[in-house]
Amino acid sequence: MTTQHPGTDRLRFGADYVPSSGWLSSWLDFSADTARRDFEDLAGLGLDHVRVFPIWPWIQPNRSLIRRQGIDDLLELIDIAAEFDLDVAVDLLQGHLSSFDFLPSWVLTWHQRSVFTDELVRSGLRAYVDQVCRAAATRENVFAVTLGNEVDHLRPADPTGAATTATWAAELLAAARTAAPRLLGLYSLHDAAWYAGGHPFHPTDAGGLGDLTTVHSRVFDAVPAPGRPPGPATTSHADYLVELAAAGSADPLRPVWLQEVGAPRPEVPAAEAAASARRMIDQVAPNPALWGVTWWCSHDTDRRQADLADREYDRGLFTVDHRRKPLAAQLAAAIGELRGPRTSAGDRPALVCDVDLHSRPERRAEVAPGSAFHTEWVRLRQAGPLAVVPAHRADDDAYLAARRIGTVLART
Amino acid sequence: MTTQHPGTDRLRFGADYVPSSGWLSSWLDFSADTARRDFEDLAGLGLDHVRVFPIWPWIQPNRSLIRRQGIDDLLELIDIAAEFDLDVAVDLLQGHLSSFDFLPSWVLTWHQRSVFTDELVRSGLRAYVDQVCRAAATRENVFAVTLGNEVDHLRPADPTGAATTATWAAELLAAARTAAPRLLGLYSLHDAAWYAGGHPFHPTDAGGLGDLTTVHSRVFDAVPAPGRPPGPATTSHADYLVELAAAGSADPLRPVWLQEVGAPRPEVPAAEAAASARRMIDQVAPNPALWGVTWWCSHDTDRRQADLADREYDRGLFTVDHRRKPLAAQLAAAIGELRGPRTSAGDRPALVCDVDLHSRPERRAEVAPGSAFHTEWVRLRQAGPLAVVPAHRADDDAYLAARRIGTVLART
Repeated sequence: MTTQHPGTDRLRFGADYVPSSGWLSSWLDFSADTARRDFEDLAGLGLDHVRVFPIWPWIQPNRSLIRRQGIDDLLELIDIAAEFDLDVAVDLLQGHLSSFDFLPSWVLTWHQRSVFTDELVRSGLRAYVDQVCRAAATRENVFAVTLGNEVDHLRPADPTGAATTATWAAELLAAARTAAPRLLGLYSLHDAAWYAGGHPFHPTDAGGLGDLTTVHSRVFDAVPAPGRPPGPATTSHADYLVELAAAGSADPLRPVWLQEVGAPRPEVPAAEAAASARRMIDQVAPNPALWGVTWWCSHDTDRRQADLADREYDRGLFTVDHRRKPLAAQLAAAIGELRGPRTSAGDRPALVCDVDLHSRPERRAEVAPGSAFHTEWVRLRQAGPLAVVPAHRADDDAYLAARRIGTVLART
Repeated sequence: MTTQHPGTDRLRFGADYVPSSGWLSSWLDFSADTARRDFEDLAGLGLDHVRVFPIWPWIQPNRSLIRRQGIDDLLELIDIAAEFDLDVAVDLLQGHLSSFDFLPSWVLTWHQRSVFTDELVRSGLRAYVDQVCRAAATRENVFAVTLGNEVDHLRPADPTGAATTATWAAELLAAARTAAPRLLGLYSLHDAAWYAGGHPFHPTDAGGLGDLTTVHSRVFDAVPAPGRPPGPATTSHADYLVELAAAGSADPLRPVWLQEVGAPRPEVPAAEAAASARRMIDQVAPNPALWGVTWWCSHDTDRRQADLADREYDRGLFTVDHRRKPLAAQLAAAIGELRGPRTSAGDRPALVCDVDLHSRPERRAEVAPGSAFHTEWVRLRQAGPLAVVPAHRADDDAYLAARRIGTVLART
């Protein structure tokens, strides 16, 4: 009998919550009725959790002012989730959502200060993390906080370096842990942290900071062929990224939460979305490192909301008028089949990765979608589950056993 | 009998409204009780109006979303002003206040777009101006809208040029006029528009766009000697700027609203504030171009509000706990003496200004505080009211009569 990854005895399924009305702008006019109706939709699929995204500058409009009403709105949303037996992960610093950055006036223009390095800003962030975490932890259905949704996206306004970002994240995770020791404290980045050689947020930190690793799988980064049925590179991308993250952690038992995954147009044509989603889930679900799957996103966005990228409007499991999409039905079916205790998946072969993402982050492009390594992994993956193993651990039997790896395949 | 400037038969006195609690962040938790208590303070001084400052991105968090509740909060504030017989001027685009820029996510980072040139942003601004003006115009005590408080401050994030800024302002003023023909439509800039040669907002526009000219007199720009009793350059600065604005308009009868003036530390020591304010008022009040005087600002800001410049915390007429300051009492006394029908001030001498601010804006530094021209004007001003006349109009008798200028003094 092999060791199951801690906390992964049952797969978790959830949705990233985008309100059906008013997008995230709706926080300024929080509506319990809308949230209740939306969560009823989600619970009906058999989901067990939601990730929620408060908007940082609306809760902390001044560095010294953390609005009680802003926190109360968040708590009310959490309590409504509890009505539907939905657990909640709170993302703290938005920060960034679907191309929109929300930054308070106290880090802008005349107060232009680095979110990552300025000590006054960091003291403000620590206070924010502390207060939001303390409040969230009072609710039993909250199980995790994430520093923010893809905080690396804040970089365009704020050049920084990898040492800085790691220190920044560790400091805020420590603040979260102190304020809310019961909650998982997590760090989330977009996939460039795994794929872009120059990205100042490194795999070492994504795979080391926080209580488990989170990944966000963007199929539009995964060798898409827009308009055609998604190929194996697309449907296996979530599994690939989970595997890369598992291989990228020093701890062979560290779980990986597939925190954002979806089926966006045009890379996934609407008619293919349900089948493609099911193939994606079926490929990633046996991965022994997988903690859970959270869908981006819960609800479509009304087209009256301006300036989102076209693909962002209809990424929901539900339409804005609460119709369940075929892919949502497919997700519900998968949840029905997969939510019981996990059966042992058996050992898998693993492809050796010659790139050490920790010591050589500048080589990340060599594992990105479309690289020779990725291409070979996708080819072999079609025969069944396939791990990734770092070259320096390819002979480490204990490591291989912990990761449920049998055969080790050198690259051809 | 000479022609009085239209609309200046009685001087108007008001305050720029900074709430006693929560600074402008308080818009996110609008409190009618706070506003009522604050306006009671102001009405007690004999003031007849307030300028109010809604925060743009909180009313328009998405380009296509203008929040009804945001507008309703503004209307409630206006109605509370009416309870105290206070008229209201609404500043539209904040935009900028006391060093804080408030910018929505749809013009930031990933959506980085020029507030001044991007057509989508401008369409959003036109919609915002339209809706806020239409709403404001439903209230009889609203008499004016200003595009925003010192919109030129938005420039650090957004390089632009003078032709652009003029077109931008004209377009939005046209939108305001269409939406609210009854209201004065105004444009306000900080004094660099008059003094800084390279500033991309020009005197021609400040003195030509909108229904009257507004000026903001910052005594910290006016040859201050911090810690010492304010000298004549400081106490006459408001009058100088009103005069420069009057001389800088093609229309000799165009009124000038001294829309922001104050007595900030350390340029004006606290013990000198009341006397200094009175000298300032006594010098500017006889100016025939003067439409009114609005004090920056109504109430002090709680020190718990972080990151304001030190001098910004205690610029109120009232403390945060509603104590009337000596300078407020002095202002009330001045209002009592000055609020009746204005008596003819008689003709004044004028100093010829060789710098044509319209055709040669790059020469603006030659009229800035501390320049030879300003120094001579201050010296002569000590003998009594003194106009400024552009050289090319120094022989234009009709113009001189309209501006109530008798003798024309060439510079020594």
